[in-house]
Amino acid sequence: MSVLVVGSIALDTVKTPFEEHADLLGGSASYAALGASFFSPVNLVGVVGDDFPPAHMETFRSRQIDLNGLQTVPGKTFRWSGEYMLDMNVRETRSVELNVFEHFTPVLPETYRETPVVLLANIGPNLQNHVLDQMERPRFVVADTMDLWINIAHAELMRLLPRLDLLILNDSEARLLTKETSLIKAGAKIRAMGPGHVVIKKGEHGALLFGENRFFSCGAYPLEDIHDPTGAGDTFAGGLAGWLAAQGGASVTFADLRKAVVYGSVLASFNVEAFSLTRMHSLSMNDIEARYEAFRLMQQFEVLD
Amino acid sequence: MSVLVVGSIALDTVKTPFEEHADLLGGSASYAALGASFFSPVNLVGVVGDDFPPAHMETFRSRQIDLNGLQTVPGKTFRWSGEYMLDMNVRETRSVELNVFEHFTPVLPETYRETPVVLLANIGPNLQNHVLDQMERPRFVVADTMDLWINIAHAELMRLLPRLDLLILNDSEARLLTKETSLIKAGAKIRAMGPGHVVIKKGEHGALLFGENRFFSCGAYPLEDIHDPTGAGDTFAGGLAGWLAAQGGASVTFADLRKAVVYGSVLASFNVEAFSLTRMHSLSMNDIEARYEAFRLMQQFEVLD
Repeated sequence: MSVLVVGSIALDTVKTPFEEHADLLGGSASYAALGASFFSPVNLVGVVGDDFPPAHMETFRSRQIDLNGLQTVPGKTFRWSGEYMLDMNVRETRSVELNVFEHFTPVLPETYRETPVVLLANIGPNLQNHVLDQMERPRFVVADTMDLWINIAHAELMRLLPRLDLLILNDSEARLLTKETSLIKAGAKIRAMGPGHVVIKKGEHGALLFGENRFFSCGAYPLEDIHDPTGAGDTFAGGLAGWLAAQGGASVTFADLRKAVVYGSVLASFNVEAFSLTRMHSLSMNDIEARYEAFRLMQQFEVLD
Repeated sequence: MSVLVVGSIALDTVKTPFEEHADLLGGSASYAALGASFFSPVNLVGVVGDDFPPAHMETFRSRQIDLNGLQTVPGKTFRWSGEYMLDMNVRETRSVELNVFEHFTPVLPETYRETPVVLLANIGPNLQNHVLDQMERPRFVVADTMDLWINIAHAELMRLLPRLDLLILNDSEARLLTKETSLIKAGAKIRAMGPGHVVIKKGEHGALLFGENRFFSCGAYPLEDIHDPTGAGDTFAGGLAGWLAAQGGASVTFADLRKAVVYGSVLASFNVEAFSLTRMHSLSMNDIEARYEAFRLMQQFEVLD
């Protein structure tokens, strides 16, 4: 089963206290598509300018990602530049140039409209709604969002939420959306806004999954060295959605979602080990399954005597 | 098997956005002793003034806590006053009066010196060292500490660390002690300072346990309403040490420590449900075991297909 991924495709310039690289492949859809591609075929929807490097296009192709939904238009590709502090939890955006992304309207190829699993990676909720409008009865719809849309596109976001099987957002965004300090209260409150399930990402502290009277707490894989946190959340969403698509996406159980959260965490933990999407080039299913198992062992404990 | 608990015993005044109570039973040793008492006999070492309410003494007695090591001296009991903000993660200390605690020197009754498990709850590392000097070959030594001692009693703390089987501290304290942002690096670095194991508490995000090439990530129990977070860390340490003592404390395995961390988390999660130590009065072993099981289910996931 395939997953449709829509989101931004960008050229990133990323600076950490130790390294700086320019014109890296970035954007929410790039990370999500590569993450998903380890588990299922991916239909990619996005836009790039005519300056988009062939090498980055080749990165998508090398992962068998379908590019029929990728528009190339005259102009410059979306560019983002950011800097991480010594505490890699702290990031400063240095510049954003929307370029061709400013007037992007996702138009789905006919062949994409019945893709069973949909991942609306982080873009404006108006575009996310527009993509869903073009889909024929998707089996499972996942969306990511961010503080910007909560602040400036609140009504569109509220219109999106009831259309989702799963909303993914981070802890500060969950607090912003609900005005609740407690993440437990926030998770329940967001579910009441419409999505069947909610994942609250907590960075180095893992992720919480909320369903109807169900809860799952997932730790983060313990990494000593993080080279580039960019796209960790997008890779998480991609791994999660790709794994669900591989299961067929028909009747997704809470147990499936738990595993999907862990697979998403595994993919994200690999991705931050190198700049941009570099780590994905050498990643194997053996690596993924070994880390899944390590993950399981590090947070399980014994039943009562 | 018994556990010896030494630390502060205080009269607390606690204000939250919803309630305020004065002269509550508080202090690191009070919380730790009550937490431990659900699993094993407790020998309590501490000091109170002659103003200490008989009702609080009765609270210790009702949990069969041995009070031969509790000194009552002329003067006023240690007092602490604090206020929690709407975000209960944020606390402001309003006043501290050391009173009889200022000149406290723990002297262990002869009958306490062979207690197999020792919990040095949060007090100055000079006093923690002094208690250890009086012990006869304890089987397992746990200590808690805080930012104050890292800042003003660093040398004493460094002298203490190699004498410990387990050091417990919170995330900001771990970062302060190691100058590392990554908690994974911090955990390893603290182990290199001497203690056999390290637990880094992360409040609402759970706790991390570090051993030699072993790691355990424990989520926090999802509570919607927290009435008084005071003493959560002390109750955690008490539950953990008490449970270890109940196992005999002879050859503590990593699997034992994992369970001990979960039991500590369970005890702490109950304690914050009411002011001071109130919740401990009605708590039963059935409650504890049911929550342990709920805890296990909420962070376990399936093996690979």
